[in-house]
Amino acid sequence: MSDNKQLTAAMLPSGFRWGAVRAGIKSSGNLDLAVALATDAGSAVGAALFTSNRVVAAPVTVGRRHMTATGGRVAAVLVNAGNANCATGAAGIAGCVATCVAVAESIGCIFDEVFPSSTGIIGVPFPADKVVAALPALKASVGSSVEHAESFARAIMTTDTKLKTAHAELAVNASGAAQGDGAGRRVRIWGAAKGAGMICPRLGAPVGPPHATMLVYLFTDVKAEASALGMALATAAEPSFNSISIDGDTSTNDTVLLVASGASGVRLNKELTSAFNAALGEVCQSLARQIVADGEGVGHVVTLEVRGAASEDDARRVARAIAHSPLCKTAWSSADPNWGRLLAAAGYSGASFEAERVRIWIGEQPVFEYGVRAASFDEAKAHAAMMEGEYTIRIDLGAGNGECNFLTCDLTAEYVRINADYST
Amino acid sequence: MSDNKQLTAAMLPSGFRWGAVRAGIKSSGNLDLAVALATDAGSAVGAALFTSNRVVAAPVTVGRRHMTATGGRVAAVLVNAGNANCATGAAGIAGCVATCVAVAESIGCIFDEVFPSSTGIIGVPFPADKVVAALPALKASVGSSVEHAESFARAIMTTDTKLKTAHAELAVNASGAAQGDGAGRRVRIWGAAKGAGMICPRLGAPVGPPHATMLVYLFTDVKAEASALGMALATAAEPSFNSISIDGDTSTNDTVLLVASGASGVRLNKELTSAFNAALGEVCQSLARQIVADGEGVGHVVTLEVRGAASEDDARRVARAIAHSPLCKTAWSSADPNWGRLLAAAGYSGASFEAERVRIWIGEQPVFEYGVRAASFDEAKAHAAMMEGEYTIRIDLGAGNGECNFLTCDLTAEYVRINADYST
Repeated sequence: MSDNKQLTAAMLPSGFRWGAVRAGIKSSGNLDLAVALATDAGSAVGAALFTSNRVVAAPVTVGRRHMTATGGRVAAVLVNAGNANCATGAAGIAGCVATCVAVAESIGCIFDEVFPSSTGIIGVPFPADKVVAALPALKASVGSSVEHAESFARAIMTTDTKLKTAHAELAVNASGAAQGDGAGRRVRIWGAAKGAGMICPRLGAPVGPPHATMLVYLFTDVKAEASALGMALATAAEPSFNSISIDGDTSTNDTVLLVASGASGVRLNKELTSAFNAALGEVCQSLARQIVADGEGVGHVVTLEVRGAASEDDARRVARAIAHSPLCKTAWSSADPNWGRLLAAAGYSGASFEAERVRIWIGEQPVFEYGVRAASFDEAKAHAAMMEGEYTIRIDLGAGNGECNFLTCDLTAEYVRINADYST
Repeated sequence: MSDNKQLTAAMLPSGFRWGAVRAGIKSSGNLDLAVALATDAGSAVGAALFTSNRVVAAPVTVGRRHMTATGGRVAAVLVNAGNANCATGAAGIAGCVATCVAVAESIGCIFDEVFPSSTGIIGVPFPADKVVAALPALKASVGSSVEHAESFARAIMTTDTKLKTAHAELAVNASGAAQGDGAGRRVRIWGAAKGAGMICPRLGAPVGPPHATMLVYLFTDVKAEASALGMALATAAEPSFNSISIDGDTSTNDTVLLVASGASGVRLNKELTSAFNAALGEVCQSLARQIVADGEGVGHVVTLEVRGAASEDDARRVARAIAHSPLCKTAWSSADPNWGRLLAAAGYSGASFEAERVRIWIGEQPVFEYGVRAASFDEAKAHAAMMEGEYTIRIDLGAGNGECNFLTCDLTAEYVRINADYST
């Protein structure tokens, strides 16, 4: 339901066409400009979440304005990779708007119905002219096949090594509710994501620490109000994109967009909401997991299950402290069951607990219980669990009922190599 | 005034003897047990600061109790390296107390006049028996020469590659005030420190994120009340130890102890306070700088000068976000003037500012001004500045008068290698 292996055109939401071209923005010469067009430009609506970084890229500023101005109408999504259009001042804003205007003229919509995104290096002047020059070819590239959709997903990649897509499908009965037997009308959701570094999204209002250029585009053919899409997206983003971190650096460009074409003819009514939200949640969880698994230099994906915290906030404090601790992350890179570093990071997280009540497991192995190393701790077994590509660390703080799951990864010499080489 | 190159015995504070032995705690077989003894056990008093990590090692618990119980009397300081005695439960506390009792019996003081510290791996049972067995040799090792003092400093090292000591001296006139011409009676301060990883001290009350095993022992022969020493120490620690970070991980064991023997006969009166505090501050700043410069895998030491913040707290938020950003730190490792990462980290720090008012300099090079790359930005010159072993990054947020200086370092593949290998 949530990977792209057996994707067929019938699984893609109707009412959209996708395309991509080489506009010469990436120095590699790879695909770097992507577009998604609503077939019926006037009827597609969307909702978006943006980074909470105080410093935001021009397309985030422009995209926010456009969504507000149109009440969520989205006729086109325009994404470039290779240049973040961030810290580019008034020229960056002007360049972004110019590309939206050019797309609008090209496809016949209003310029603020074009939703822009950029990802890449910060502080380099935005090559709006290259984007505009590539628009005729971009328009000619669009279609509704799997190959078209995947060209969109491929063009937005930067240091990603893998294509990241996910899909889900709902069957709906005559009265508009989800139908278990798979018969009836269909609602489809397909999403594409990019992100491998600067990944620690904190989507929401511009307060507090956020992190990463993550771009996510979710397309569905359900018929919905922008406000209902906004609620569905906020609900889906919290346990997925807002619960992952690769490096703890929150980007200036993070964007998650959900667009509904309405082409299925199925309304997102009260009866369908819970099933739709569940399906959207699965797509988001799958994309979030794919992002961490393809993180820069990542060797191991680690799920942190924090239990027994005094509050959910405390649970998240502990998860984030561990997920951002260089000492925890380097130990994971060598499958070293150094649980003392986990305990130390929990201790400085700001969460309230007593070490004497804490229990920690690595995989199935209890490693720490009530103030001391677990009596049954088997270092070789814990090491073996950590040799797996993916495993779980569980921490019960013994302080209450707050809990969270958080997905993160190790810190490797390869991560350092990749990021020591970025702009030079 | 603040390095150990020309240290002579006359520069050491009188009233102390130092020594160290190999107790078999470090697997390397190096010196691993150190002691400092007050010559007149009853008259030496001290003040200490401890980690604010909620999880603390046994010697931190015991040391706090001892300082409270005695009102600050310190007859002996006992430090081992190779085992942190943390997450060792009741046995760890009992083992720590047993070593204090044994030292007290050996030198003839009360057991809570012994101040204990440990550093090393977390969660391994504390070998109190090895410490007790080594005490006769340890007692026999003490003396007041430079070699004795430096054996103390050497024994407390773990992943440190360099001895870290600093000293200062004050001349005092007949009325007890500092005397500029160097004549008069002398007050001496000598300090030793260890710490290379898990370094982001947040000394103080157990709230909020702290970080690192840093151990610092400061000895002086001034005659002072414990409360005056406490105030002097808190003042000196803030711009030094509490303003550095290597990896953002705050230790469970961080300890800074200041002990005054009184052997100079000079009182720390009102006239002397400001000069004494300045001298103590210099010693602390020197030790803090030595810690960062010898950080695990460190290639470059970076001073962050944050100016124009809305508050001092905001200035520190920005400094810490940058100092803990893997993307900033990896760029520094290759002298990559990727200032966009600095701006992004400031943006997610939680500090309040507008990107359009921010200015950033790398060394003397303006790199970002008022929303865009500085017109005079010379990438080659910025790169050259970053090739130096030590340089400054200045950020003016344009939001107020809050400011801070913060000392940190790059993140290298060597750091990953060192910490991926720690316990296995």
